[in-house]
Amino acid sequence: MKLSKNIKRCEQSPVRKFYPCERNAVGRGLRVRHLNIGQPDIETPPAFFEAIRNFTSPVVEYAPAPGVEVFVQAVQKYYRGFGCELAGDDILATFGGSEALEIVMACILDEGDEVLVPEPFYPNYTAFINITGGKIRPVPTSAAEGYHYARREMIEPLINERTRAILITNPGNPTGAVLSREEARLLVDIAKEHDLYLISDEVYREIVYAGEIFTMLEFADAAENVAVVDSVSKRFSATGARVGMLVSRNRELMGEAIKICQGRLCVATLDQIGSAAMYNQLGADYYRAVLEEYTRRKDAIVGALRKIPGAEFTEPEGAFYFMVTLPVDDVEKLQYFLLEEFSDQGETVMVTPAAGFYSNPELGRNKARIAYVTAPEDLIRAVELLGMGIEAYNRKCGK
Amino acid sequence: MKLSKNIKRCEQSPVRKFYPCERNAVGRGLRVRHLNIGQPDIETPPAFFEAIRNFTSPVVEYAPAPGVEVFVQAVQKYYRGFGCELAGDDILATFGGSEALEIVMACILDEGDEVLVPEPFYPNYTAFINITGGKIRPVPTSAAEGYHYARREMIEPLINERTRAILITNPGNPTGAVLSREEARLLVDIAKEHDLYLISDEVYREIVYAGEIFTMLEFADAAENVAVVDSVSKRFSATGARVGMLVSRNRELMGEAIKICQGRLCVATLDQIGSAAMYNQLGADYYRAVLEEYTRRKDAIVGALRKIPGAEFTEPEGAFYFMVTLPVDDVEKLQYFLLEEFSDQGETVMVTPAAGFYSNPELGRNKARIAYVTAPEDLIRAVELLGMGIEAYNRKCGK
Repeated sequence: MKLSKNIKRCEQSPVRKFYPCERNAVGRGLRVRHLNIGQPDIETPPAFFEAIRNFTSPVVEYAPAPGVEVFVQAVQKYYRGFGCELAGDDILATFGGSEALEIVMACILDEGDEVLVPEPFYPNYTAFINITGGKIRPVPTSAAEGYHYARREMIEPLINERTRAILITNPGNPTGAVLSREEARLLVDIAKEHDLYLISDEVYREIVYAGEIFTMLEFADAAENVAVVDSVSKRFSATGARVGMLVSRNRELMGEAIKICQGRLCVATLDQIGSAAMYNQLGADYYRAVLEEYTRRKDAIVGALRKIPGAEFTEPEGAFYFMVTLPVDDVEKLQYFLLEEFSDQGETVMVTPAAGFYSNPELGRNKARIAYVTAPEDLIRAVELLGMGIEAYNRKCGK
Repeated sequence: MKLSKNIKRCEQSPVRKFYPCERNAVGRGLRVRHLNIGQPDIETPPAFFEAIRNFTSPVVEYAPAPGVEVFVQAVQKYYRGFGCELAGDDILATFGGSEALEIVMACILDEGDEVLVPEPFYPNYTAFINITGGKIRPVPTSAAEGYHYARREMIEPLINERTRAILITNPGNPTGAVLSREEARLLVDIAKEHDLYLISDEVYREIVYAGEIFTMLEFADAAENVAVVDSVSKRFSATGARVGMLVSRNRELMGEAIKICQGRLCVATLDQIGSAAMYNQLGADYYRAVLEEYTRRKDAIVGALRKIPGAEFTEPEGAFYFMVTLPVDDVEKLQYFLLEEFSDQGETVMVTPAAGFYSNPELGRNKARIAYVTAPEDLIRAVELLGMGIEAYNRKCGK
């Protein structure tokens, strides 16, 4: 039975590759500490649950294809806080930021079209782009420069007649890099000059330690170019709600995107209602408190990692991930070792080997993505395990 | 700014085309009765709401990409009732039946590939297929034969080297036609002989008035060919939950489909938990009660429609839709007339003009899809309005 060539070009998520091995470790009684997953332990705000509990209609009906009205209005109000006056039509509710990405790629890419993506990048971007027949052209960055990419000389030489878009994650996953407003301006200028979409995945928007919190939608002169991918998942620690949005003032683009939204009918009704309540009831104080908590975590993990000899990294500027170069030959091998051969007091640790964040896996061979979404003391212990594991691994390898 | 040629091949949903016009009518104070939408008024079972209210975890976390374990197990148990022993891996939770269709089409279609679909068909199939670069090859059916399509001589001549699948809806939307087990066997045989996928959209499975309730998964000899699209939307009147599933024993297909599931991370966690509870707490008695209610509705609308001179139809065998040929030149024009110029005691009515259910709209010009998802007395009044509206429309047209 034939399968499509585009699906063959997609791969299973590298983040989930070690799952069977982890299950075995847990089965052997090991406690596995996680520096690998982006599932925050911050409580989902009660507003979400309350709004769903207060849903009194006897039937869970379809929502409108573009989104439940209270949700769209809540999002409009939220963006007003950034000085962005959006029409209701500028917002489409989606199944998480993921579906917003799927939709925008389906709308703009033909077979052979290219999207510039700073590398290392979120691996699922590959699936969203490859399934359309398009492909990623990576914008190489360097650990030494903290994975920053907004330089004309890094981007422009990669633009060709098949380039359709620049796709960025700001704040960055997996890098933790954050754009300055000047860098953002430059990207906007490049997009305008070359008639490209600038697709900005801003799902970590409020989590910025060093730099300014803003959205690409603020660049009103690039209304035709900018499409923002957003979500309640990380903002409100509600990843399982699967409520996100595609936001753009490009009427032609949104006129195409709505076709896909109508095709899949709507996003889950109750989750949209719960999400609207979070937007309406929570504001600056909430975002500040969450940021403070992540700052504590960031400080804890950075402090702990500095104690691992040979581990190199730039202190993260935002989100809750960063890239760390580890003093090993291959972080994938290290990860298997940590799950299969190592333990300390019945515990081990997982990181995400960074090979999957690069189009050429070799570039990420000695790097890991570290996620810090648990309490500071847990992070410190996890990094301690990582340090011991590295030592044991290198000893085993005869180093 | 360039847009993809595949999205340009998709269209806005014809079902929603009259929405602005309806808003105007409502704005003028008219009550609009609906024979056009598939949103049942049957209450969503309390089990759904209770399970969600009883969710006590403080964080709404990602679900596993293939589905929440309790949901997958509940679906396994449900299919065991049809004698189908499914592995957990045979089931992928999806955002409604819609996403199951999107996923399976993305997995099997390359540009120019064809899917045989009995016509008239659910219009969103066009979007799911066209977005991949594939296209629908309609299998023409006739009103006179009740829109039945499972005949070797109707299907085989349409198969060519680009044909990848046969896509059916059983029970049928928009036709209300139901396959006999012999007809289903024939489709399975054709799929096997020609090495085609048989994609069976069975979201109305339990709603059968005349014929047998079964699933294509029962044909164990066609495990490689059959992929079933299923959903809680209509089974439990929970369309806004957006919980469906792709079910297939074709391991290669499911191995590709999981890539897309991992890319979009998961289906909404709470809705899966609520859906699992419905499967676990409701069974044969519930399905029977729902079927009895739809039978009353079907009988009411059939009785009422028989009083409209010139209206022609075959009594529906399943689902809650059927096709009616109306004694007018153009049902779209009739619909605009009903919303803009007609009323009786402050009321008017909507049907779905059937042009959008045909690849060649002319074929559906004098036909409507009728949905009967409200109480019998409401249906009778709606059909009365339709009869009066047709008379007034034809008078206006000078007939």
